[in-house]
Amino acid sequence: MPFEIERKFLVAGDGWRVDADSGSIIRQAYLANTGKMSLRIRTRDSRATLTMKSAGMGISRLEFEYDIPLDHATALMELREGSIIEKRRHLLPWYGLTWEIDVFQGENDGLVVAEIELPHEDHGFPLPSWIGAEISGDPRYSNASLCKRPFSRWGEAPAGERVADPEM
Amino acid sequence: MPFEIERKFLVAGDGWRVDADSGSIIRQAYLANTGKMSLRIRTRDSRATLTMKSAGMGISRLEFEYDIPLDHATALMELREGSIIEKRRHLLPWYGLTWEIDVFQGENDGLVVAEIELPHEDHGFPLPSWIGAEISGDPRYSNASLCKRPFSRWGEAPAGERVADPEM
Repeated sequence: MPFEIERKFLVAGDGWRVDADSGSIIRQAYLANTGKMSLRIRTRDSRATLTMKSAGMGISRLEFEYDIPLDHATALMELREGSIIEKRRHLLPWYGLTWEIDVFQGENDGLVVAEIELPHEDHGFPLPSWIGAEISGDPRYSNASLCKRPFSRWGEAPAGERVADPEM
Repeated sequence: MPFEIERKFLVAGDGWRVDADSGSIIRQAYLANTGKMSLRIRTRDSRATLTMKSAGMGISRLEFEYDIPLDHATALMELREGSIIEKRRHLLPWYGLTWEIDVFQGENDGLVVAEIELPHEDHGFPLPSWIGAEISGDPRYSNASLCKRPFSRWGEAPAGERVADPEM
């Protein structure tokens, strides 16, 4: 059964650009996020995928991914919840593993995140100098969350916590 | 783009059994139902499918279906909302079309529904003698609804409309 084990970090500076590839554009949207699982549609260049992930605890989650036709993906994105996330993903080989460095665009501009998939939960690896704080367990940085509350609006008061009306 | 156009009826009596096949067992569950779309996992004999349908109005809905491995389907059903629906589906050829007659089991025992897929919305066809009331637009009979509020419990007061506590 396909499990995904990955760790996620903020990126400090541009040091990673020397060894990374030029990247590819990813567009993705979430059609559902039930608390038990999420359903994501993603396009990357001319390839489209459908991905279901269990709402797992910690860094290990059940994940199923299937290729789908590109025109299906375009139509399915219209059934999304939240907005479409756009980012450029760069790959960087690292001691037999691969860093995926996502440079977000649009409403999430300014956010740069590095992820690394591990063969098992306690797999050790050296951290590059450009790695910042670990955010593996932080729900704000999940893509399912970013499409509802994008990075550019994190400074705003959350809905439901508005400043009281001065006329009251 | 794959659209589904179908009409759905209750079944009156057993007259259909003469011409129908012996049927196959279907098990299905819904992983999400967002108001914009539903995500269904279904097994039928040794075949498993993932289906997404738009929450369309009337009898026409956008539908995407993909084959998935049987063991994926079994694992994915654990992420469901509501219960698993089980039914035996019989096929019956009908003037170039096909009736699908679903005899529900378990919590939906007693419910028998016939569906027919049409090439376009105003396609005409003769109704068999065993056809009862049309339920195409009735949300109670959708499988997504039956897994949350099964047929056997329709006689009960809905949640939130309980009889007042006599001690009060």
